[in-house]
Amino acid sequence: MTDDEQELGITESKSHDTGDWYAEVVRKAGLASYGPEGMSGFIVTRPRGYALWEAVQNALDAEFKDTGVQNAYFPMFIPESYLEREKEVVEGFDPEVAWVTQGGHEQLEERLAVRPTSESIIAPYISQWVRSHRDLPMRVNQWCSVVRWEATETKPFFRTKEFLWQEGHTAHETSEGAWEETMLRLDQYESLYEDVLAIPVLRGQKPPHDTFPGAKTTTTVEALMPDGKSVQGATSHHLGQSFAEAFDITFSDADEEERVAHTTSWGVSWRCLGALIMTHSDEQGLVLPPTVAPTQVVIVPIWQSDTHEEVLEYAEGVADDLEDAGVRVELDDRDERNPGFKFNEHELNGVPLRIEIGPNEVEDGELTLVHRPDGESIVEDREDVSDTVESHFDEVYAKLYAAAEETLDGAVREADDRAEILGTLGRHGGYVETPWCGDEDCEAEIKEQIAAEIVMVPFEDDDELLGTDHEETCGVCGDPAERTAYFAKSY
Amino acid sequence: MTDDEQELGITESKSHDTGDWYAEVVRKAGLASYGPEGMSGFIVTRPRGYALWEAVQNALDAEFKDTGVQNAYFPMFIPESYLEREKEVVEGFDPEVAWVTQGGHEQLEERLAVRPTSESIIAPYISQWVRSHRDLPMRVNQWCSVVRWEATETKPFFRTKEFLWQEGHTAHETSEGAWEETMLRLDQYESLYEDVLAIPVLRGQKPPHDTFPGAKTTTTVEALMPDGKSVQGATSHHLGQSFAEAFDITFSDADEEERVAHTTSWGVSWRCLGALIMTHSDEQGLVLPPTVAPTQVVIVPIWQSDTHEEVLEYAEGVADDLEDAGVRVELDDRDERNPGFKFNEHELNGVPLRIEIGPNEVEDGELTLVHRPDGESIVEDREDVSDTVESHFDEVYAKLYAAAEETLDGAVREADDRAEILGTLGRHGGYVETPWCGDEDCEAEIKEQIAAEIVMVPFEDDDELLGTDHEETCGVCGDPAERTAYFAKSY
Repeated sequence: MTDDEQELGITESKSHDTGDWYAEVVRKAGLASYGPEGMSGFIVTRPRGYALWEAVQNALDAEFKDTGVQNAYFPMFIPESYLEREKEVVEGFDPEVAWVTQGGHEQLEERLAVRPTSESIIAPYISQWVRSHRDLPMRVNQWCSVVRWEATETKPFFRTKEFLWQEGHTAHETSEGAWEETMLRLDQYESLYEDVLAIPVLRGQKPPHDTFPGAKTTTTVEALMPDGKSVQGATSHHLGQSFAEAFDITFSDADEEERVAHTTSWGVSWRCLGALIMTHSDEQGLVLPPTVAPTQVVIVPIWQSDTHEEVLEYAEGVADDLEDAGVRVELDDRDERNPGFKFNEHELNGVPLRIEIGPNEVEDGELTLVHRPDGESIVEDREDVSDTVESHFDEVYAKLYAAAEETLDGAVREADDRAEILGTLGRHGGYVETPWCGDEDCEAEIKEQIAAEIVMVPFEDDDELLGTDHEETCGVCGDPAERTAYFAKSY
Repeated sequence: MTDDEQELGITESKSHDTGDWYAEVVRKAGLASYGPEGMSGFIVTRPRGYALWEAVQNALDAEFKDTGVQNAYFPMFIPESYLEREKEVVEGFDPEVAWVTQGGHEQLEERLAVRPTSESIIAPYISQWVRSHRDLPMRVNQWCSVVRWEATETKPFFRTKEFLWQEGHTAHETSEGAWEETMLRLDQYESLYEDVLAIPVLRGQKPPHDTFPGAKTTTTVEALMPDGKSVQGATSHHLGQSFAEAFDITFSDADEEERVAHTTSWGVSWRCLGALIMTHSDEQGLVLPPTVAPTQVVIVPIWQSDTHEEVLEYAEGVADDLEDAGVRVELDDRDERNPGFKFNEHELNGVPLRIEIGPNEVEDGELTLVHRPDGESIVEDREDVSDTVESHFDEVYAKLYAAAEETLDGAVREADDRAEILGTLGRHGGYVETPWCGDEDCEAEIKEQIAAEIVMVPFEDDDELLGTDHEETCGVCGDPAERTAYFAKSY
């Protein structure tokens, strides 16, 4: 094995050392590098990694715009007094932030926080812009980076001091309007995961004691990672009137009465890329669904010196057809690498579909297609190559989704008492579904013993326990229970 | 006049108080607001303003990607030691920056600069990523915000402490490769101005004493503003080997020899939006070319109670046709506003084309189209409305471009001696073209007396003086001159 080939292999085990394996995939597939010395917690997002973020942006941004959202951009700094104001009205809001204290050679009179989230600077402007009920609903969103100065081990896309995200902020006439907005955005996040990233998710709300500070309800989509932990994939908050009251977001209604608005906020960060990479990839490297892969198809010509010309010409024709059809295709015609090396490299980089073309394919007017996730190899006619490729994209997507769904389905287990909850979480990880009395203490008890928490409570409509006369009792304390809770260890 | 109508008018004069007029257009057209108290120099980019930035991004980003550029994202903070390293190697580099000195409750050991530009953090990574000549050219770009702590009067999009931009950074095998890159990006910026923003520009290079610190050549596109000053519209730098040497960007060539790369950087900021707004707008408000207008067409139905239904139905059909054709169209069917109010409002907001539909239009199967820049009104058939509208977009674009071009052409004046240079700049502003000996002192002399500088020197191929045996003499000192200089007051 040459050095080059060694560099292409993943040496860590996905099932045994998930964290190390993940870090190795991120590095070797060229997705991200660690930040410079003196800046632990920061990463450099390399082109192949950033292209994935652009794919997420393109998908979500189009959905947002189709549903009334406008993008804007607010300053990256927030005066300390603004954050203080938020702290006063919002119990539990006390982010660790990076502080700008000097501008040029001057000491600033007031410290400026690098935004950890922008409620406190956006709300005062929404307050200015909203006058009448005709200005509502008002929806603004920004794509930006935020900084939270938390001292934890760096894990690219999962745990970094600076991260990319979008944050949407809206104001509505009624609580129902705000609730519809909250759920619309959650639906769009669910669709991002399920229809773009090939990751099935569980949807529900955070328990009351774990809502976003100041929010009435925090909704979430949760994704299962291969190490059995749950990732909070995106959140959408019904903020009630707490922010509107604090920041004076009022409007005159149709009867010229002054009323307080109802607001929401919702966001997804590049953590969804972490979930994407971790869910599908394997010990050959990155695995991506064709929906987001920067290169969807790689064509590898296989020639001897006497067939070089005809094979290359045929391959170029195929590449042209695919490019004309809008497929992101690369023809790997490098002379200095052999086909085996190329196969390994493109597998490492997560190209979902490989087309192999040798003299046989040319002679028979065919193509050999190989699916990245499982190496399945299929011979197809050269004709209608773009339709053929599109249908293989669908197959590859379906394979990835089905595998993730099978894992998720197998990882949701019921438990009725404390010992079973702890035993199941300890042995299998994943989710444990149990009736719950609603008391935070019951979560605390589990958390203390096994570091798992209630990551999600199904919505009322989805919760079979609610409003029935099942006589269920809380899996932890034994008191009567009307709701279901999902316990899991969490990122 | 009601309060509402007053709010729609621009009260400042474009020709007499350009600065105040500009600020009023930005505010009343809802493009930007000033930052919060304690944050002078910052602005909030409102949805209509941000949509213009997105239009610029979409146009440029597609060009970049078609020509080999990949997007990436680097940390927003740069350790002080990295900036110091750049200062040591790059004479004249000493930006005023915002300093992060505290993270959470801790004092940082090393101050972190909020990026003023990213050469010093990107170059060390390019150094790691480039190994062989096969890795070249390497081109990365990021769209981000940067901060420069300069204490000047705030002018949205022109002078703000934080601004949005893109910065491209590339490495090449040869100086020629880097020069081609420099010019390719300048061409793309020129095309952004001329083909997207309807602003003709002058292109050339900065005089040697005014290149970007560390650069071999700085190229620029310059746009004329209505107050007779020049705006540096975008710059593209051939950095030679200075950054590559300082940051160790080397590669092994085809003969396995270690060589130093040649690098470039290039960027355009949201200042191009300032130029856009200032060039075309008038005393009714914002004027935009259809290429970038968030709303390209507004349909205003004009009805009495007995014609309400038929007019509205006809208008909806037109709106649907345009929307299906991909036109950004708005049907303004508000009951509570009369057509005159609507006309004023959409003129203020810079909608390039208005379609008026009343009972006459319905009866005759026609439409009345009104161009924003000059109020020209044209009756057209209802049939093929989307083709008709596209051709009116072209007309509107051509009108805006022609007006700007006429202004520019009239503002370039020749001068052969000091008195003429000073007199012409003093009387007319604009550009003064004069033979120049190449000495910085000659610029200094003019600058001292009238605050104008050499904003541009035409490229060698465009410079009629170069290499000829014209016996020209420098307009300032009278020494022999081989190059032409363009003097102007500058933003």
